[in-house]
Amino acid sequence: MPNDMQSASRYVDPGFTRPSPPDCATPFIEVDSHRLDRNIAGMQAIASSAKVVLRPHVKTHKSLEVARRQIAAGARGLTASKASEAEIFLEGGFKDILMAYPVVRSSTIARLLHLARDNQARVAFIAADSTGVAALNEAALAFDMQLPIFLKVDVGLGRVGVKPAGDDALRIAREVDGASNLRLVGLLAHAGHAYGAQSPAQIADIAAAEIRDLLDLRTRLTACGLSHLTISTGSTPTALGAPIAAGADEIRPGNYTFLDLTALRLGIAVPDDLALSVVARVVAVNETYAIIDAGSKTLSSDHGPHGTGGSGFGKAIAVAGDGSLSAFSVEKLSEEHGFLRLDGGSLDIGDLVRIFPNHSCAVVALSDHFMMRDSDGTARSYKIDARGKLI
Amino acid sequence: MPNDMQSASRYVDPGFTRPSPPDCATPFIEVDSHRLDRNIAGMQAIASSAKVVLRPHVKTHKSLEVARRQIAAGARGLTASKASEAEIFLEGGFKDILMAYPVVRSSTIARLLHLARDNQARVAFIAADSTGVAALNEAALAFDMQLPIFLKVDVGLGRVGVKPAGDDALRIAREVDGASNLRLVGLLAHAGHAYGAQSPAQIADIAAAEIRDLLDLRTRLTACGLSHLTISTGSTPTALGAPIAAGADEIRPGNYTFLDLTALRLGIAVPDDLALSVVARVVAVNETYAIIDAGSKTLSSDHGPHGTGGSGFGKAIAVAGDGSLSAFSVEKLSEEHGFLRLDGGSLDIGDLVRIFPNHSCAVVALSDHFMMRDSDGTARSYKIDARGKLI
Repeated sequence: MPNDMQSASRYVDPGFTRPSPPDCATPFIEVDSHRLDRNIAGMQAIASSAKVVLRPHVKTHKSLEVARRQIAAGARGLTASKASEAEIFLEGGFKDILMAYPVVRSSTIARLLHLARDNQARVAFIAADSTGVAALNEAALAFDMQLPIFLKVDVGLGRVGVKPAGDDALRIAREVDGASNLRLVGLLAHAGHAYGAQSPAQIADIAAAEIRDLLDLRTRLTACGLSHLTISTGSTPTALGAPIAAGADEIRPGNYTFLDLTALRLGIAVPDDLALSVVARVVAVNETYAIIDAGSKTLSSDHGPHGTGGSGFGKAIAVAGDGSLSAFSVEKLSEEHGFLRLDGGSLDIGDLVRIFPNHSCAVVALSDHFMMRDSDGTARSYKIDARGKLI
Repeated sequence: MPNDMQSASRYVDPGFTRPSPPDCATPFIEVDSHRLDRNIAGMQAIASSAKVVLRPHVKTHKSLEVARRQIAAGARGLTASKASEAEIFLEGGFKDILMAYPVVRSSTIARLLHLARDNQARVAFIAADSTGVAALNEAALAFDMQLPIFLKVDVGLGRVGVKPAGDDALRIAREVDGASNLRLVGLLAHAGHAYGAQSPAQIADIAAAEIRDLLDLRTRLTACGLSHLTISTGSTPTALGAPIAAGADEIRPGNYTFLDLTALRLGIAVPDDLALSVVARVVAVNETYAIIDAGSKTLSSDHGPHGTGGSGFGKAIAVAGDGSLSAFSVEKLSEEHGFLRLDGGSLDIGDLVRIFPNHSCAVVALSDHFMMRDSDGTARSYKIDARGKLI
């Protein structure tokens, strides 16, 4: 390949420029404190200007420190997946948590309700079927609590929720309303299928369909006497890739704190926005690949959320002595090794690279700590508080 | 689809029969104690009958309890990947550990050597380049230790190691031999490319090529005065899928303890051998899928080791009231949800399923504990001691 072709193929968007990684034990997750704060402030500005509540999903960062920054910036509460994940944030002092995951056994949330009562915290739940309504009410009865419940609506991901147009929506809403210790407070959706969008226009279409479905359903429910229902929507793609829909009361994005290559692929972020990277070291070089000390046990094998995504497992950026950047594709992974295709580029054993992963949420789920680096270069290690909370 | 077609497509190999999962909080990893012991004994029998040392790789289970069973059955020592992983097993009382991962900075193994000296344990390492030799010798000097070193040979995976036929092999071997505090003790290879084999014959070919390359190299090194070198090989596919090669002194399989769908795909195990499964619960059902509470944060997104594998993320088995089995493909994953394609089958909210994953090593790396279940149904929770030890 002629030299100019080589350099063309090796062109790196300057938005990937970051400080040279420190020569610490590798691999480790580095969170850029300034970019994190900027992402938090950016989403808060979007929410505030649209006059919706921001209730960020903690599944991305699983970190009390990051959640504190989100609340300090104006977030009104938090969203969690599993009960044990929510418990960590209640124990960490947060007072308003929505568990956006279907509960099908009352015992699943017993400890969570116990903590909520002891800490005078508000916990809300979702329901999408009779089993869930019964389980939630049983738990609420046992703790003599009244629980706010959102009817979970499937707006197209095809995962959990009543169909917006069907009879189930009304039936389940009535069951919640009729349960002694539950209070139907709203409709909730997650348009995760926006991760599969091929263009910003498609994201906007998905967001528009989501709110239309939810508002239509609310009209139907109101006509049946189920009124005063709030509308909770939100994924990072729809929040960053489309205007916040008129009619929404609350958004619940998660990934926006760190972002990743998936956000770049979707066109909802630029390289300069990415706040999370993995610092790894070249431990071997052969004719085809530089081998780094981060494999699937550090980077995950995720191509992107919900099975979306392209090829490869991340983009590795190396900084040469003269400050110039070169980029390498993380082409494949063993458990503790990543394969960077050299493709005419050059890396030496011992070199540090910074990897921007496909899916930051999946990376965080594998490590016990991350380094938070400030603009002045100082860094502090934080525990990933809710890692491994799968139940 | 006519009924007989349906039942044909839903046929489940009776080898997947396991006890109905207990109605505990889900999801969780269950290890079948009897099958684990059988797998451990089986590999020990293979090693003993071939008169080779079995030095199992702990990266699969990361568990002191499982390692104790391996040693009790006759394993002569352990293999670990990262230094921090090896440290956990030294602290757990194991006295003979090979760190089969390239060291490129002396500080990486400082704590490991400290522990080895304090515990009078033997730790061995691999080297494949000058940087590694220098780093190992520097660390050995600092602790005034003599370290046994294996020359790492790349027999086809294309990852780490000197090429068996090239000049580097001799050069690096001489560097090790010439280093003040290192002792060249053998040649070591990992034929991980056997995971990509399309037939048992291909596995056998890979195993045969591996030992031929290693023995040829040993002959060359011996001619240069580098003698008394042992040969350490081993992956689960070559150990189970081919005779142990004459000339090998030691094998280092890891995955054989638990096995997984990859082992079935390779034809080196039958369903009845699989000792690890993930118990999950149906939390939603729609027209296409049953949704379970185990997603990529529990099952991983791995299709198989080293980027090998087929489609899907596991096989879910449900037990009906009459004891009959039905199987469902885990077709896609969100972070905390798995999508089981119903395909004419039936599952209800609350139902338990047992998932046999693609890659058991990747599953273990995500959880903090596993349940060990005895044949009598009793179970005990064990910590996954070396989880998250990535450095």
